[in-house]
Amino acid sequence: MFVILVYDVNEKRVAKALKTCRKYLYWVQNSVFEGELSEANYKKLKFELEKIINKEEDSVIFYTFRSMRYSERESMGLKKGGDVNFL
Amino acid sequence: MFVILVYDVNEKRVAKALKTCRKYLYWVQNSVFEGELSEANYKKLKFELEKIINKEEDSVIFYTFRSMRYSERESMGLKKGGDVNFL
Repeated sequence: MFVILVYDVNEKRVAKALKTCRKYLYWVQNSVFEGELSEANYKKLKFELEKIINKEEDSVIFYTFRSMRYSERESMGLKKGGDVNFL
Repeated sequence: MFVILVYDVNEKRVAKALKTCRKYLYWVQNSVFEGELSEANYKKLKFELEKIINKEEDSVIFYTFRSMRYSERESMGLKKGGDVNFL
């Protein structure tokens, strides 16, 4: 499946969350990651993040796509991620 | 088209950016918005955001989907947006 992950994690925990997300996905911008994942790795990623984040303070959204990627990604302003060189 | 927008905007400008994004899209979490937009409104949104953000400091990503929505959205932790009641 193709996954887009967006997080909003307190700076105390963000380094750990970043490291975990980068194990599974490409870092495309400050708080945005994406990539192709197996069902098993998607579960692992969620399991690991659940141990890192504080559910009262942080949030993570996962968009999952069964068989396609997005049609287009446009960005405006700073490129802060940088695992993928796009555009 | 269906649009997912993620921003990372300095707090000096974030109230304006939020207001603009909410004119066009649903606010689903802190820095994430989504919704169905016409090509004309997508252009308007980008035009308005370009006037608000500082391209040296802020970033915005737009994922656009021609004919489908995502298959699934899962979230973990806080729900900070709240225009849409999901799950």
